[in-house]
Amino acid sequence: MVQSGSDDYAWAFPFDPTAGNRERQIYRGLRDAILARRLAPGARLPATRRMAERLGVSRGTVVAAYEQLAAEGYLDARTGRGTIVAAMSDVALKSLPTTEGPAPSARAETFGRAAANNPPWPRCFRPGLPSLADFPQKEWSRCLAARARTLRRDDLSYHHADGLPLLQEALAGHLNRARGVVADPGQIVIVPSAQAAFDAIVLCCTDPGDTVAVEDPGYPGARHVFAAAAANVAPVPVDNEGLVAAALEGVERLRLIAVTPSHHYPTGVTMTLRRRLALLEAARRRGAVVLEDDYDSEFRYAERPIASLQGIDGGRHVVYVGTFSKLLAPGIRIAFIVAPPRLAARMADITAALGQVVSHHVQAAVADFINEGYLAAHVGRTRPLYAAKRDALVAALRTHLPEGATVAAPRGGLQLLVRLPDHVDDLRLVEDLADADLAAVPLSPICVETPRPGLLLGFALPHLEEIAPAAQRLAAIVARRM
Amino acid sequence: MVQSGSDDYAWAFPFDPTAGNRERQIYRGLRDAILARRLAPGARLPATRRMAERLGVSRGTVVAAYEQLAAEGYLDARTGRGTIVAAMSDVALKSLPTTEGPAPSARAETFGRAAANNPPWPRCFRPGLPSLADFPQKEWSRCLAARARTLRRDDLSYHHADGLPLLQEALAGHLNRARGVVADPGQIVIVPSAQAAFDAIVLCCTDPGDTVAVEDPGYPGARHVFAAAAANVAPVPVDNEGLVAAALEGVERLRLIAVTPSHHYPTGVTMTLRRRLALLEAARRRGAVVLEDDYDSEFRYAERPIASLQGIDGGRHVVYVGTFSKLLAPGIRIAFIVAPPRLAARMADITAALGQVVSHHVQAAVADFINEGYLAAHVGRTRPLYAAKRDALVAALRTHLPEGATVAAPRGGLQLLVRLPDHVDDLRLVEDLADADLAAVPLSPICVETPRPGLLLGFALPHLEEIAPAAQRLAAIVARRM
Repeated sequence: MVQSGSDDYAWAFPFDPTAGNRERQIYRGLRDAILARRLAPGARLPATRRMAERLGVSRGTVVAAYEQLAAEGYLDARTGRGTIVAAMSDVALKSLPTTEGPAPSARAETFGRAAANNPPWPRCFRPGLPSLADFPQKEWSRCLAARARTLRRDDLSYHHADGLPLLQEALAGHLNRARGVVADPGQIVIVPSAQAAFDAIVLCCTDPGDTVAVEDPGYPGARHVFAAAAANVAPVPVDNEGLVAAALEGVERLRLIAVTPSHHYPTGVTMTLRRRLALLEAARRRGAVVLEDDYDSEFRYAERPIASLQGIDGGRHVVYVGTFSKLLAPGIRIAFIVAPPRLAARMADITAALGQVVSHHVQAAVADFINEGYLAAHVGRTRPLYAAKRDALVAALRTHLPEGATVAAPRGGLQLLVRLPDHVDDLRLVEDLADADLAAVPLSPICVETPRPGLLLGFALPHLEEIAPAAQRLAAIVARRM
Repeated sequence: MVQSGSDDYAWAFPFDPTAGNRERQIYRGLRDAILARRLAPGARLPATRRMAERLGVSRGTVVAAYEQLAAEGYLDARTGRGTIVAAMSDVALKSLPTTEGPAPSARAETFGRAAANNPPWPRCFRPGLPSLADFPQKEWSRCLAARARTLRRDDLSYHHADGLPLLQEALAGHLNRARGVVADPGQIVIVPSAQAAFDAIVLCCTDPGDTVAVEDPGYPGARHVFAAAAANVAPVPVDNEGLVAAALEGVERLRLIAVTPSHHYPTGVTMTLRRRLALLEAARRRGAVVLEDDYDSEFRYAERPIASLQGIDGGRHVVYVGTFSKLLAPGIRIAFIVAPPRLAARMADITAALGQVVSHHVQAAVADFINEGYLAAHVGRTRPLYAAKRDALVAALRTHLPEGATVAAPRGGLQLLVRLPDHVDDLRLVEDLADADLAAVPLSPICVETPRPGLLLGFALPHLEEIAPAAQRLAAIVARRM
């Protein structure tokens, strides 16, 4: 960097004729001098020709910089008077005490604390991830590339903030075939993620102070979104039939009941039919809506996937949420809500107002991916792979885990739960595992009323042959903490 | 449809062997009969062979349906006893009074009322839309198709919920060159839309009951998001220099000041430098953050775009929001936040928690689109087109509008404001225009304290040659309401 002139020039600023855009350097140099009051209002700038000679640039470059500064109000260029620094606010901005700027709000900090519990990134046994190595790259890129070329310009407007009709139709058909969901395409709202779906649903179904019943233990990400929407979050116990519907009795202002009936997060329990009926009956009687979070139910290993709650109810008291994060990959960033007919219009208004929208090209590509049969084929191909991975993990854990640690083999999904004796500190255990490049989600922060230690382990991500040795390493680390 | 048997069979259900999936028909027919208590707990079903004969299907089809019903808890198949309907809850679900399901919450209805003011879809003079006919289809599809093929599978995980680093870097460079924004890539958070950005920002900067100052008149979409986040929304007048910064004095619990300094929505005023400095000084003194909504500032016709507020401040008290909706097309569905360093981490936590995320393929494609120079070229190509459209609309309106209606030619942006005499009902006028297939946004609902009638007209969407005749038609309709 060379100085533009000797220090007796008030307008001096760092200038390097060989570096970057010269006009911008002149513009910024003068602007900063004016803002710092090194150039005071009324001060006369050198004529453009003289400035150009000093800096060794063309006069046009200086003229352009002066014009921009005049357009932005820093300079006053009146004919016959030359160019002078404009009269401005009395505030010498740069001389104000520099602060770091305001701190985040208290509620922002609660988001921060919640995020601190997020598990580390892809790594052996991280829950919630499908096998990225089996992502159907060829079929997906074929669909997306085709839509990149063919989507009409008219389809790139603000139309259809609730979702492209061709995707709504494809999903209505797919969900009916695969999940027993009963819905018109117009009930389906496309959003970027399940979290965005939870946000829209809690706003649509509750007012501040209303209650959302959640499973305990249960998915903390959803709980946090409900609390952020000023809902009262009421934990309800889960037993080996699923959510204890009878415990909803005492809950006041009950408006929403969030459950994972096909595959309870984190225990893997499938809600029994008896419990499903009791839950739906409670929802009807109380005027509440059931949020069915169906995050990984297409992966069911012993029998066909259990049909959705939504289909039993006919969809009037159940709002269904699905995602492509597990079916395909999280980076696709697409999920969907199947809203009861009475809520569908407002749900779409909310997602539009909060801008929870998805690229039209991606929506169209997902529709094609379903309609071409690629989705069904992909699930059909990965399901036995995941079953084999589950079996490998269960077997290795049962062989190597110390006594007192128990593993239930889940009938479906992409993860399983290891329960540990009460004295084990699962937070520290997870840190030990991270040091060994193994990921797990601790059970205790997932619990609300009675924290129990445990480890939630995902088995879909690692390669099959990695699983047994990694599980053995994991078991050894568990043993040291027991 | 044929009945599966005579009506004395309790299990009778509609069955059509030529229609769709037979196994699913059997499954659903029996399930509905059980839920409706036409088949009571303990009732014995026909043996699979007999049912298959009755329906004229293979026995395997019936076995599969029975097995699924058993897996879901509807049937009990014990060896030697045949298949019987399982004991379940005492609730006969289908016999409960059918309701429509719960109504939306009160806050959901406020979203509905806000949405009712949204303008109709692409149509001559609809504000907020770029020229879709000039969308750079070839360049965009080249970028998106390439990334569809080449994005690595590992990039499809939950990594980078705040945005792909390659897009953060591309944007940091572009915003510095084009808008004078000063930011490290890590301060940039990628979201699906400007509305999503407003939501994250109000959550990050305010707690319930804190105040957001907004321009009056000003963008209702942002106002509504702030109110939905339980912020107190304080309207602040706008004069011909922009937001009246002095009017912020009396505002209590001021935490956020939302402005459109480059091109005020809806009047088109550019905030003067004097006012910018006063605004930044007020923000610093009060410990508030300025939200700079820079929605269409790259389209500036008389001089280069006015540099951002963010750059003057150095980015500590200004959170900058930009979008590709006007630069490219709304259907791309991508926008971004440039957060002050002290807020960046929490802003990313909030967008991740609320799932305001964008397809990784689209993010990578936008990065390429910037880095290949396509974005700068597209803006350079469309800017003179839009200037010509603006000139055509201003000229036609000034020729044809009745006396009392005034038009200010904006120095930039994609829309202009027609002001009307106080007695005109602009809501009904907009309905008249819609009947004539012309779109406009009425001014009065945009105002908070003192509604004034007017029409906000977009000029970028229509073809140049459409503008004069459409403006003449519009003027005739305005004249009838005056």
